[in-house]
Amino acid sequence: MAKRYGAIEAGGTKFVCAVSDGNLNVLKRVKIPTTVPAETMSEVFKFFEENPCDAIGIGSFGPIDVNRNSDTYGYITTTPKEGWANYDFLGEMKKRFDVPYAWTTDVNVAAYGELKRGAAKGLDSCVYLTVGTGVGGGGVVNGKLLEGFGHPEMGHMIMRRHPDDKYEGHCPYHKDCLEGLTAGPAVEARHHGVKAYEIPKDDHDWEIEAYYLAQACMDLTVVLSPEMIIFGGGVSKQEQLFPMMRESFKKQMNGYLKTPDLDKYIVHCALGDDAGITGCLLLAQEEDEKASK
Amino acid sequence: MAKRYGAIEAGGTKFVCAVSDGNLNVLKRVKIPTTVPAETMSEVFKFFEENPCDAIGIGSFGPIDVNRNSDTYGYITTTPKEGWANYDFLGEMKKRFDVPYAWTTDVNVAAYGELKRGAAKGLDSCVYLTVGTGVGGGGVVNGKLLEGFGHPEMGHMIMRRHPDDKYEGHCPYHKDCLEGLTAGPAVEARHHGVKAYEIPKDDHDWEIEAYYLAQACMDLTVVLSPEMIIFGGGVSKQEQLFPMMRESFKKQMNGYLKTPDLDKYIVHCALGDDAGITGCLLLAQEEDEKASK
Ligand SMILES: Nc1ncnc2c1ncn2[C@@H]1O[C@H](COP(=O)(O)OP(=O)(O)O)[C@@H](O)[C@H]1O
Ligand SMILES: Nc1ncnc2c1ncn2[C@@H]1O[C@H](COP(=O)(O)OP(=O)(O)O)[C@@H](O)[C@H]1O
Ligand SMILES: [Zn+2]
Ligand SMILES: [Zn+2]
Repeated sequence: MAKRYGAIEAGGTKFVCAVSDGNLNVLKRVKIPTTVPAETMSEVFKFFEENPCDAIGIGSFGPIDVNRNSDTYGYITTTPKEGWANYDFLGEMKKRFDVPYAWTTDVNVAAYGELKRGAAKGLDSCVYLTVGTGVGGGGVVNGKLLEGFGHPEMGHMIMRRHPDDKYEGHCPYHKDCLEGLTAGPAVEARHHGVKAYEIPKDDHDWEIEAYYLAQACMDLTVVLSPEMIIFGGGVSKQEQLFPMMRESFKKQMNGYLKTPDLDKYIVHCALGDDAGITGCLLLAQEEDEKASK
Repeated sequence: MAKRYGAIEAGGTKFVCAVSDGNLNVLKRVKIPTTVPAETMSEVFKFFEENPCDAIGIGSFGPIDVNRNSDTYGYITTTPKEGWANYDFLGEMKKRFDVPYAWTTDVNVAAYGELKRGAAKGLDSCVYLTVGTGVGGGGVVNGKLLEGFGHPEMGHMIMRRHPDDKYEGHCPYHKDCLEGLTAGPAVEARHHGVKAYEIPKDDHDWEIEAYYLAQACMDLTVVLSPEMIIFGGGVSKQEQLFPMMRESFKKQMNGYLKTPDLDKYIVHCALGDDAGITGCLLLAQEEDEKASK
């Protein structure tokens, strides 16, 4: 029988479910608003009842438990999102669909999609940073998803402040961590509530934004030495940020390390909204292949 | 014939060469001062002529080129150490001894040694940070050495400064990066030239040191999610730093992430000076096994 692979990109505002053929061509795809599990997940279950799959890849908003030795492996853990804290996402799927699963974060699947089919095609490693309502980061190292005792939470790197920045930061845990200083709501709060896309492209605030994002690139470079750092998310649509980030990165690195050509090192995502689903499908396929060995 | 594995831990002040049996029991080991390649390496060559091996693992001071697609793969690259810049370390070895090689940094082999036989035994991931004359970091992710376009240079993470710290930092590239603020020479310069081991254990400067090292742990945690962070190097002999680092880490993380128990997460190395050689031998054995497949 022809193979079918499933994908769930579970985001804080919407879920995307998709099914593909054996070559990962998407056959069907739906968007489901993220409300409470009872509602959202019943749509998800319905989708996969109607579209049976041989394996399913899930990339979920988090924090989630990715530690296979943990009792709560497969759960969404401490999210403030109503109803989702301690939700046994993977367990509820397994109860209904007895297939192999891949289970990781939304940003890890995006990193994987970009690595295999997008900006980082042909490479063995990359980082994917999304700068949107929050800041999240995923990665691939030696061809494998970046995980350890848990998954990365790159949005919470500690930042050296820009000398001109008066904004205190909005992370409820750390105030002025990377997310607290650079996510969309931070950009808007720094600019007294002006929508991020309405701030003039030559405003000094974009320099500040680029400085922090470049600092994150600097830390990611010295820690991970990734072959590419890929940006996604709403804020990264501000194209003027890329030359500014590269310039600031160069200044902050100050010649210490020879990195890949910065125009190809600090880049915008290539797959856009498809990165996550692509990554999920690739991971589903791999799980299926592992299981049929 | 019984197997023999070789190890070279190439440090900035001394080289250690060793040969083991097939079970990685060290049979012979020598120390060679690091002077210029002509001198130091002729001792290394002599050692392996007298002690032939089936495979050799090398962990070298750096920066080194670990990128297999590069023309200078196997070289020490931009070191200020006289004679060693652009030295084709691996090439010179291969010319003389036609065996499989593992080639990585001194800190990556230490991380690998600690993971397989030391503090992180049984785990799949760890970070090893050495705080000595400089600060270096290596890591293992999903059981494999942490490498990408190059190798980590964790000593150069950007730091948020401690409010009480007046010391400007001594990194020639970044001044007050992690290494510039926490390596042995920084500790001594901050304390007006007093030898690090002579600074009273209750001096406030150790709080400052612990704050920066904890900040590094924080950034490493949110980027890598390692199962353990292991400290080595001269400065880490100050045992009082460990409870202080854990305390500061807890404050800086502020409950955002549930990490492993901090007493088992931020730890001193278990193998001490043997970590590097152990890692080299393990990697040599793996290369030998790969080659005989
Ligand atoms: N074109 C744009 N330019 C700058 N900021 C934008 C743009 N589009 C969206 N944003 C910002 O990105 C955030 C939304 O992020 P997005 O990645 O679209 O969704 P989410 O993170 O919720 O999945 C908002 O805070 C908004 O201010
Ligand atoms: N017991 C100690 N306490 C504090 N600092 C120490 C101690 N021993 C060595 N150091 C510091 O560590 C540095 C040497 O680092 P070490 O790891 O021994 O060697 P290297 O980094 O050169 O391989 C020196 O700057 C010294 O000040
Ligand atoms: Zn934060
Ligand atoms: Zn530096």
